[in-house]
Amino acid sequence: MTIINKQILLVSRPQGMPTPENFRLVEVPLPAISDGQVLVRNHFLSVDPYMRARMNDAKSYTSPQPLDEVMTGGTAGKVLESKHPDFVAGDTVLGFAGWQEHVIVDAPQASLMQKVDTSRIPLSAYLGTMGMPGVTAWYGLMRIINPKAEETVVVSAAAGAVGTVVGQLAKERGCRVIGLAGGSEKCRYVHEELGFDGCIDYKQYQDVQMLRAVLKETCPNGIDGYFENVGGLILEAILPRMNTFGRIAVCGMISGYNGTPIPIPIPQWILQSRLKVQGFIISDHMEVWPEALQEIKTLVVEGRIKSRETIAQGLTAAPDAFVGLFQGKNFGKQLVKLI
Amino acid sequence: MTIINKQILLVSRPQGMPTPENFRLVEVPLPAISDGQVLVRNHFLSVDPYMRARMNDAKSYTSPQPLDEVMTGGTAGKVLESKHPDFVAGDTVLGFAGWQEHVIVDAPQASLMQKVDTSRIPLSAYLGTMGMPGVTAWYGLMRIINPKAEETVVVSAAAGAVGTVVGQLAKERGCRVIGLAGGSEKCRYVHEELGFDGCIDYKQYQDVQMLRAVLKETCPNGIDGYFENVGGLILEAILPRMNTFGRIAVCGMISGYNGTPIPIPIPQWILQSRLKVQGFIISDHMEVWPEALQEIKTLVVEGRIKSRETIAQGLTAAPDAFVGLFQGKNFGKQLVKLI
Repeated sequence: MTIINKQILLVSRPQGMPTPENFRLVEVPLPAISDGQVLVRNHFLSVDPYMRARMNDAKSYTSPQPLDEVMTGGTAGKVLESKHPDFVAGDTVLGFAGWQEHVIVDAPQASLMQKVDTSRIPLSAYLGTMGMPGVTAWYGLMRIINPKAEETVVVSAAAGAVGTVVGQLAKERGCRVIGLAGGSEKCRYVHEELGFDGCIDYKQYQDVQMLRAVLKETCPNGIDGYFENVGGLILEAILPRMNTFGRIAVCGMISGYNGTPIPIPIPQWILQSRLKVQGFIISDHMEVWPEALQEIKTLVVEGRIKSRETIAQGLTAAPDAFVGLFQGKNFGKQLVKLI
Repeated sequence: MTIINKQILLVSRPQGMPTPENFRLVEVPLPAISDGQVLVRNHFLSVDPYMRARMNDAKSYTSPQPLDEVMTGGTAGKVLESKHPDFVAGDTVLGFAGWQEHVIVDAPQASLMQKVDTSRIPLSAYLGTMGMPGVTAWYGLMRIINPKAEETVVVSAAAGAVGTVVGQLAKERGCRVIGLAGGSEKCRYVHEELGFDGCIDYKQYQDVQMLRAVLKETCPNGIDGYFENVGGLILEAILPRMNTFGRIAVCGMISGYNGTPIPIPIPQWILQSRLKVQGFIISDHMEVWPEALQEIKTLVVEGRIKSRETIAQGLTAAPDAFVGLFQGKNFGKQLVKLI
């Protein structure tokens, strides 16, 4: 029986926010697999902000996504059929199959497809807290901010896949942790359920001076570490509140991904407060994954790191789910569930 | 015989560029020294860009200079009379006496006054290459940029007291070194006399696109380390030319000291190129002085680090010499010679 594989291709490069016209749904029959190949049914697709940069043709930190090819991205699924000695049907696997329902993987390599243990961790978590977003949080916090107990750590997009882990890891380190998130529901979750010391609803403060005032109130001892996911107005408000020798881990600047970049108006703060501002991309640091995931797994299993998912249903929901990231629609990790 | 001491006080806080009205010359008789005190005749005053920040009342990296007191600053001179066992008349000393001809130091401490050896190094050099500017260059280059051989290092204000040392130290490390300086005479000096691989006269390129084009031509392999003394347009031009994992040591942003801060228009480069941007103030790192000065001294004595001074004559020339720093009038280290 031939399986018809549904795929979403990127067919044109978005100007600003992506629209449905930038994507096309296609259906292609899957061939039978050959020796050394594995057929996987994808259960979950990951949509992540970094994908926006890949949709451009310009130089960025990743190579551009080729047009008329399947949108790339992280996936989690189950082996349907295997002609490779390391895999059997039923194995749960993490991969990078992109926006499609099935994938045939040649001579699987660990970097392309790895078996994951779902006995205590749900499959979808390997695309979130137990995957790239979790390791991203760990690296920026531990290797760039490296906070000491009692220090104040602030994280933007605090209710997102990365931000939730940053804050909970910082609490484990004994820090005072303040989040920034959009809307009272997200803030309540971050503060009450995740145990951050506070969460600022930045939508209440559209003006940089007001945002600075509430940061001063919420972080009376200043800010020692800032985990940046947003950029723009929030970064502008944060800079003067940073303590001497403060560290800023620049993980993302989502506020500028779809439009005009938003300048840092007073770079002198970097000098005056002797700040370290460091950008990073987790794929540069594959060597930390085992250590990071071991630490995160322990905390997840013990219930000390909690997480939440926003799940869109069906492959065709992927473009909207992706666009929703830039509108703050996701609560925790945004996934697309295929089956 | 009573000595009359001439002093320059800061009497009001400048708005923008300092003017003569911000300073006042006073003459005060010096008392006889008591046990434990040392009387020093200052031979050279240092004027440095960091002093501008101290003239403001606002929070900065140093506490504000109090009004109606002697402008503080580094000095080099000779002991005239000593009632302290560690000093005798004729000792050459480095201190922090400020803009005045004489100073009486109580129970001298190493941090306030130290003897320096002028047998192979001229006294004035201890305010430049062999002093704070030299150690500043060393720290930013070695501890923040930490360049490998063959890497490209760019330094702005390349003909200044700090920039000249940055570039020569980077050449010692086997780097390709490009300077930025204002005017053909400075560029010729940096390139031909100091041995930089090139020097860009930034005054020829008032537009950021033109500056980027010449940086691309001069640094065909991109920029791995940038030592920032200037900020503004130059930083804007540099950012997209930085290589992945580039390091920017922010030592100064002189273009913004006297007016409106000049924003970084596209902070996304920090993320895309995974840059480390780190501000520093050398007085935070007193522990590196011995190591830095030992290395610099060896190179100076061997003639492998050259330096140049611009010398203004007499105490009353200090305010103009200081203002000249912001107009790029100094060539190498700006000093005021008192005797």
